[in-house]
Amino acid sequence: MGAVDNILVDRTGDTVVVTMNRPARRNSLSAGHLADLLAAFRETAATDATGIVLAGNGPVFCAGHDFADVAGRDLAATRDLLRLCTDLMRTIQTVPQVVIAQVHGLATAAGCQLVASCDLAVAAESAGFALPGGKGGWFCHTPAVPVARAVGRKRLMELALTGDPIDARTALEWGLVNRVVPDDRLAAEVTDLLGRATRGSRASKALGKQTLYAQLDRPEADAYTVAVEVMAAASQTAAAREGMASFLEKRAPHWPE
Amino acid sequence: MGAVDNILVDRTGDTVVVTMNRPARRNSLSAGHLADLLAAFRETAATDATGIVLAGNGPVFCAGHDFADVAGRDLAATRDLLRLCTDLMRTIQTVPQVVIAQVHGLATAAGCQLVASCDLAVAAESAGFALPGGKGGWFCHTPAVPVARAVGRKRLMELALTGDPIDARTALEWGLVNRVVPDDRLAAEVTDLLGRATRGSRASKALGKQTLYAQLDRPEADAYTVAVEVMAAASQTAAAREGMASFLEKRAPHWPE
Amino acid sequence: MGAVDNILVDRTGDTVVVTMNRPARRNSLSAGHLADLLAAFRETAATDATGIVLAGNGPVFCAGHDFADVAGRDLAATRDLLRLCTDLMRTIQTVPQVVIAQVHGLATAAGCQLVASCDLAVAAESAGFALPGGKGGWFCHTPAVPVARAVGRKRLMELALTGDPIDARTALEWGLVNRVVPDDRLAAEVTDLLGRATRGSRASKALGKQTLYAQLDRPEADAYTVAVEVMAAASQTAAAREGMASFLEKRAPHWPE
Repeated sequence: MGAVDNILVDRTGDTVVVTMNRPARRNSLSAGHLADLLAAFRETAATDATGIVLAGNGPVFCAGHDFADVAGRDLAATRDLLRLCTDLMRTIQTVPQVVIAQVHGLATAAGCQLVASCDLAVAAESAGFALPGGKGGWFCHTPAVPVARAVGRKRLMELALTGDPIDARTALEWGLVNRVVPDDRLAAEVTDLLGRATRGSRASKALGKQTLYAQLDRPEADAYTVAVEVMAAASQTAAAREGMASFLEKRAPHWPE
Repeated sequence: MGAVDNILVDRTGDTVVVTMNRPARRNSLSAGHLADLLAAFRETAATDATGIVLAGNGPVFCAGHDFADVAGRDLAATRDLLRLCTDLMRTIQTVPQVVIAQVHGLATAAGCQLVASCDLAVAAESAGFALPGGKGGWFCHTPAVPVARAVGRKRLMELALTGDPIDARTALEWGLVNRVVPDDRLAAEVTDLLGRATRGSRASKALGKQTLYAQLDRPEADAYTVAVEVMAAASQTAAAREGMASFLEKRAPHWPE
Repeated sequence: MGAVDNILVDRTGDTVVVTMNRPARRNSLSAGHLADLLAAFRETAATDATGIVLAGNGPVFCAGHDFADVAGRDLAATRDLLRLCTDLMRTIQTVPQVVIAQVHGLATAAGCQLVASCDLAVAAESAGFALPGGKGGWFCHTPAVPVARAVGRKRLMELALTGDPIDARTALEWGLVNRVVPDDRLAAEVTDLLGRATRGSRASKALGKQTLYAQLDRPEADAYTVAVEVMAAASQTAAAREGMASFLEKRAPHWPE
């Protein structure tokens, strides 16, 4: 990884914090940085951690692709880079852990895409969000994919076509983030929300998260077909039985794992 | 139905009020309760009523599935229960009447799903909404299907993963309900909104509602294909002709049925 | 076009302003008016203009279909009219220019559909929006298609089933428009937002806009497939290379066209 690690990975309790650590490059997503992030998510997926925090060191959360790493690439090499980036975004949605973005400063282009791709997001009041490809020559085609699915259509058009940033409060109103908090409360509020989102049975939560993404994009009837089968199967698990039994017996549940 | 009826069905004028009536069980959706609700919607569908109000007796609107009725079921029996529940949710969307939820107190799990599945919803200020499977062992897989289609993606994730309730005002901001009103105004405001939503030709309104659901989940070009054919055919009905004629003649319309 | 032109087309700089000009008919969309609008968008598409403003003369923006032109049509003729109308709506989304609606007064039925179909929309404080087919005999089936994709599901149901208007502020909260401004600032604010949305390379912006519509309605994985291929190809264009080079060299970009 060179003299400075692209990312820092730290586990505390059931939570793994993945910190982007290229502050001098505004945490921009070079191929090496993307590969390290992807490896970190894949390795964490195989552990018994229940939550992942995605954070950034330095003045910004993430500035998107690293143009120094893109400028010289031909078509095939650029496609490889974008596929690697897409693999990271999709992996965030498929790992069994709940993934939460801890956003301070600017999250732009693929950095904004990271926020949209995480299950949950908490923004500091100082945070800002933009798809700056709209200002110039290389449009934010792929970042617009998950952003479109978090905010409304007219709002996507404004973000993508103008390239102008929105502040944290607007991001909250538009549904891009779940909380806006004072900057000095950011890590604490992330811990609080992640704690709420990871309590209960780890296996049930993982199945729940993955089924949400499986049904979200489908026509409603197809979504029900998926969700009914999963929920019927899930009813037979030890966790579901314990959840129901503890409720009926008016006692606290003891999750099987 | 036993000593106490699961539901009460009452027609006043053009409106049928279906009231969940298991307050001691928090209107939870046992198989018997689901079957009675489904029968009530199907029977009302065949009448000339124009609107259906779905309400609940007791301290909560609906607490979701009745764990006493789920706990002992095997996979096949649980699937049957969830299919029955899904049939109810889909039937609410396919009946020709406009269906409005009158929500007081908590609407949780499949109770929140009922609110999301109704065409319209009015909430009392005291109402709350949650997908509490996120707290425990049996995740709210199927309730998340229509809730996902009413609120944004990040908001769905927060509801489904945390299990925490949101208040009525938040439900309004997120698009889960259409109105929040003082508790003592709930029934009156439901009547007002339903009246606005059911005026005009009953046949046109029914075709309109059903076509909305037919086009909602499709890619835009496919949605237009459906909507253009329906709207062209609808232009030839007595109701459409009377609507246009009365407009052009600057007189009140006299709907043919 | 008869004694009065259905539309006025005026180019100033890089912007073409298309003004609906049937104020005595509340800019309603007769077949002739639709055909003229469609021709104007198609002709402008072939020019080097970067933006299109859609505005209306007279007291309202657009009152939807012209019932005087619909009332006598049989099924086939009505289908032709609706297909022409749909062609206009889809063309707004496929032209390479950014299209912005400048909305004063009422935008109802297919007039509201025009607002929903434009990439961006700015509303005067006095503007209102409605799908009035919900009040009467000919339901707003096709206008509901793009409106559904701009606002939430419950809000669509309320608009479509009641036919009641919402004000500009509500339209902003629901995501139907991007800005609400004082009436006397309407044209200036449209110019400002359109300027932001059209800066940079014209070819990149056109590809960006068209790719947004291509990916919006697809499941997320399919959307990525489209966006990755487009973005990889776009990386090889002169505009993208200049955008990256100017960023890395910390200088203003000089767009190749």
